[in-house]
Amino acid sequence: MLTLAIETATKVCSAALCRDGEIIAAYDVNTGMTHSEGLLPQLEQLLQRTGVQKNEIDLLAVSMGPGSFTGLRIGLATAEAMAYSWQCCLHGVDTLEALAYNIQLEGIVLSPVLDAQKGNYYQALFQWQDGRLTKLAATEVVSKEQLLERIAVYGTLALLLGECSRLDGQELPGWLRLAPQNLRMPKASSVALAALDSFDAEADRKIFGLEPYYIRRSEAEELWEKRQKELSASEK
Amino acid sequence: MLTLAIETATKVCSAALCRDGEIIAAYDVNTGMTHSEGLLPQLEQLLQRTGVQKNEIDLLAVSMGPGSFTGLRIGLATAEAMAYSWQCCLHGVDTLEALAYNIQLEGIVLSPVLDAQKGNYYQALFQWQDGRLTKLAATEVVSKEQLLERIAVYGTLALLLGECSRLDGQELPGWLRLAPQNLRMPKASSVALAALDSFDAEADRKIFGLEPYYIRRSEAEELWEKRQKELSASEK
Repeated sequence: MLTLAIETATKVCSAALCRDGEIIAAYDVNTGMTHSEGLLPQLEQLLQRTGVQKNEIDLLAVSMGPGSFTGLRIGLATAEAMAYSWQCCLHGVDTLEALAYNIQLEGIVLSPVLDAQKGNYYQALFQWQDGRLTKLAATEVVSKEQLLERIAVYGTLALLLGECSRLDGQELPGWLRLAPQNLRMPKASSVALAALDSFDAEADRKIFGLEPYYIRRSEAEELWEKRQKELSASEK
Repeated sequence: MLTLAIETATKVCSAALCRDGEIIAAYDVNTGMTHSEGLLPQLEQLLQRTGVQKNEIDLLAVSMGPGSFTGLRIGLATAEAMAYSWQCCLHGVDTLEALAYNIQLEGIVLSPVLDAQKGNYYQALFQWQDGRLTKLAATEVVSKEQLLERIAVYGTLALLLGECSRLDGQELPGWLRLAPQNLRMPKASSVALAALDSFDAEADRKIFGLEPYYIRRSEAEELWEKRQKELSASEK
């Protein structure tokens, strides 16, 4: 099975091709929110470089959030349009779950986090056991203190993945480390691997109607609210 | 410091950009030996996609082998030409050492291997200790039995990286695993990180004269030998 995967939930814009569980090409860019201009060229270049024909693709896998409105909207719109045009299946993957595929090693508690703003984090907890990913704790919005408490109960070495760099300079307990920088951020290659494990050939024929999980509202909404506040202030 | 890294020692053709220790873009292709047509477009696309200007690049980092003649020759020729044109530094990195940067996690013995042909492997042994890479055992050409013996002495969990997939179906001892497939093969991002740790601003001003470490001879040499044998056989 040939999977084309897209990961745009954060400031990382990433595309990957995976054939029968082997990543044959991956293209990750981490230079801020340039997804609208960058994603399609990345996909086009991956196909051209690998010589993969569009009609060979069986599955479009896409990261569904938690994540930014604009990033997810670009990723999902692109994936839907391609799945529709090429008549292949479309499968959405939880962004935190996909992050756990960055480090498929047993004996470590993996804690992917994403910035939920106002000092909070989206957090889930996973562990690799006998070659399969086990979810230890479901996604919740937590403060930094709650985040640490939720990991501490497992009493073993744990790694933070995702948008955890704000915790970098802070004192972390000895049993908690940040994942190495090159394995920390979301990757389309991990979305492809996660999709292979959760793909359902029947259900994934439905191309439209997937609902991404937004953290941040669109810039337009935020701008509108700001303007409304300014207007009401000037009227006083 | 901005580093452009190239990794072409194996069938993986990989390029990456690293700014002050953070990978800002990585582009890995694992579809066989298409480096001569693919490497330059990959580099060009990375620069274009990230908006990095050529004159911003401080360092060209390149994987020096062990590796295939053709792959290494393409990588080094490209890196030398760019370092010469852009007047930046050039630094060669051992391919096995760079592989250890794929998994910067402590408590695990890392055993990067590369196919040395005739059932043998190039093997070195590393471990991450207090955030630094320690070489436990130097590169040697070993049989499969010797490879396992060299790891067993450490009596701890070990991971094989690199060209180890031939060992996949075979019975490995319980303390030895293959690295996850997405972290197994050489990556330019790891070459960039390894170069940052070993770069010498004075020595690396010398652009020409780096000597790659070949495993396989060039196709031309192999073809020449084959033809010579055929000729001498037909003369008998």
